Amino acid sequence: MKFHTRKWVKPEDLNPNGTLFGGRLLEWIDEEAALYTIIQLENQKVVTKYMSEIDFKSSAKQGDIVEIGIEVVKFGSASITLSSEVRNKMTHETIITISNIVMVNLGGDGRAKPHGKTQVEYVVDRLR
Amino acid sequence: MKFHTRKWVKPEDLNPNGTLFGGRLLEWIDEEAALYTIIQLENQKVVTKYMSEIDFKSSAKQGDIVEIGIEVVKFGSASITLSSEVRNKMTHETIITISNIVMVNLGGDGRAKPHGKTQVEYVVDRLR
Amino acid sequence: MKFHTRKWVKPEDLNPNGTLFGGRLLEWIDEEAALYTIIQLENQKVVTKYMSEIDFKSSAKQGDIVEIGIEVVKFGSASITLSSEVRNKMTHETIITISNIVMVNLGGDGRAKPHGKTQVEYVVDRLR
Amino acid sequence: MKFHTRKWVKPEDLNPNGTLFGGRLLEWIDEEAALYTIIQLENQKVVTKYMSEIDFKSSAKQGDIVEIGIEVVKFGSASITLSSEVRNKMTHETIITISNIVMVNLGGDGRAKPHGKTQVEYVVDRLR
Amino acid sequence: MKFHTRKWVKPEDLNPNGTLFGGRLLEWIDEEAALYTIIQLENQKVVTKYMSEIDFKSSAKQGDIVEIGIEVVKFGSASITLSSEVRNKMTHETIITISNIVMVNLGGDGRAKPHGKTQVEYVVDRLR
Amino acid sequence: MKFHTRKWVKPEDLNPNGTLFGGRLLEWIDEEAALYTIIQLENQKVVTKYMSEIDFKSSAKQGDIVEIGIEVVKFGSASITLSSEVRNKMTHETIITISNIVMVNLGGDGRAKPHGKTQVEYVVDRLR
Repeated sequence: MKFHTRKWVKPEDLNPNGTLFGGRLLEWIDEEAALYTIIQLENQKVVTKYMSEIDFKSSAKQGDIVEIGIEVVKFGSASITLSSEVRNKMTHETIITISNIVMVNLGGDGRAKPHGKTQVEYVVDRLR
Repeated sequence: MKFHTRKWVKPEDLNPNGTLFGGRLLEWIDEEAALYTIIQLENQKVVTKYMSEIDFKSSAKQGDIVEIGIEVVKFGSASITLSSEVRNKMTHETIITISNIVMVNLGGDGRAKPHGKTQVEYVVDRLR
Repeated sequence: MKFHTRKWVKPEDLNPNGTLFGGRLLEWIDEEAALYTIIQLENQKVVTKYMSEIDFKSSAKQGDIVEIGIEVVKFGSASITLSSEVRNKMTHETIITISNIVMVNLGGDGRAKPHGKTQVEYVVDRLR
Repeated sequence: MKFHTRKWVKPEDLNPNGTLFGGRLLEWIDEEAALYTIIQLENQKVVTKYMSEIDFKSSAKQGDIVEIGIEVVKFGSASITLSSEVRNKMTHETIITISNIVMVNLGGDGRAKPHGKTQVEYVVDRLR
Repeated sequence: MKFHTRKWVKPEDLNPNGTLFGGRLLEWIDEEAALYTIIQLENQKVVTKYMSEIDFKSSAKQGDIVEIGIEVVKFGSASITLSSEVRNKMTHETIITISNIVMVNLGGDGRAKPHGKTQVEYVVDRLR
Repeated sequence: MKFHTRKWVKPEDLNPNGTLFGGRLLEWIDEEAALYTIIQLENQKVVTKYMSEIDFKSSAKQGDIVEIGIEVVKFGSASITLSSEVRNKMTHETIITISNIVMVNLGGDGRAKPHGKTQVEYVVDRLR
């Protein structure tokens, strides 16, 4: 799994108990899944359709750095299935895992549309 | 299921496609699950431990009003399991459903602690 | 008065003294008044026109749960007058009260427009 | 009335109708009243106690610049009463007015405490 | 230099070390530079093109009041160069200084466009 | 230069002209510089001390994905100097560049403190 985006846990990200607010974490993962999908499918119109069960394994506290990993599980014809792990950057302790996040590719009419992709591509290769 | 909290979908809640950002929705549900648990367990130290699969059934757009429903599935000894549905307030169309959200009751030491509750209580009864 | 929306007081909602920021509270009430009006008048174009005096009776602190109550005072021809109370969910202590909030119903041209409503309606009845 | 703070109306400040969200405006006024009071009373512990009726005279739209004016109405022994007007910076059209905002000076114990001030002071004079 | 906008340093503005987050401060300065430019050039389409070196001289902490000063360095034909200083309102200690911020005036086509201004103007004079 | 963190440009990140708000971009860079420094120096107490001139080469619009690159320029005894480039993830067009960002390592007393590091390290090596 590749870990790209990093977040610094700031006071605005905490729940009232002083640990990282779970809802904020889910927001970060959903954004990362969406942008990963946009990069792979080369289409800005994508939506989250499904997430499999979410296990909150550990927490994070103010000042911690967390990194968000995304990996492709499978390419569907009009969708892509991802998995995600968020971990503490300094200790590599797992914070949360989600095995399946299904993202759907949309056409201009807002309906699912085949994307024609079958494997992970790198932007650097496309730009050659 | 009782639907309490309502949200007005504002520009700051949208994804770049102009529909309600899924991550924002998950943030709202996690907050509602946490505060519902605090009310039931009469303890401010609670954490989200697990969410079962999440089905994004429909979306919402700017100006829509959504309401968040929570129901108790089961009382554990140091936890409570909730289910949640978010729907469009005006049409009652379901936006998202989550069958099981496990919230854990913590003691002062940050570890799971029995809460002694076995059924839903109403604040109004406690205040009598 | 019916109390619907609930908020969990998080670090991002505090003033520098560590209590609930009054401006945040006013923001929450204004949003609740707007969405309540949209539900009643079945029109998304509504604006806040007037608030009567606001009494900050007590405060809230990090981790508290507050709930926002709204009640109809009167239906005007192109407006609706509401009252609001915000209280601590766990103790029912009143935090703030506003006796009159005048919301105006707008037409497509942005001007006040009669709404034809004369009493509180429930969405569940409309959907039957 | 002196107009100090200016705000640029950004997408994140809009209600779903695309005009400045009233709740955001109230948040800005409350912050300005608080910091004006802190400057005058030379005490960081102050709270909003009361606002007289609020008249929303006109609105603002994305890209507008608004400025917030504050004026002292009266010095009490443990409080200060302010008035506020918010207007469009470019046209000087009034957006909102509040005649009386009562801010209370607190001691270390969180209770109202005499502040000993009787007139407006300028920081530049204090620093001489 | 004229100091207009004031900010109250709230928990949401802090970095994890509990002092004012530098990124937030840069955001405030950029907004102030933009709105000052809009006022001077009487055009809402302006962009930040360049900032000269930024010196973080001191910090601010929760509850502090900071004020943002802007001064015109020079009028170009399609641009305006500003300087900025942010200081602590109560002590006048300098927090940050930027000697040159170049703002560009844009036409409807999104390209640089001459603005015809050669000196600072006051809105109050224009409205006479 | 390694590009790690990615951001999806959402409505809340736009200026009133509908392009990415420059202040938001500076906030993102400052956060990335801070967390990169924390990882390298293995100390959570770091502050931004200086940024060299900033060139806004192009903009980004809603729905774009931008990625933030950081590179070490030099290790000082109590500081680290970084350079940063932000670019459009899909086109690799440069949005902004900053040649020198000086971050200072602080001790418990809030003063600059030698960090003992002389070269880039990878967390994965430390954890072996």
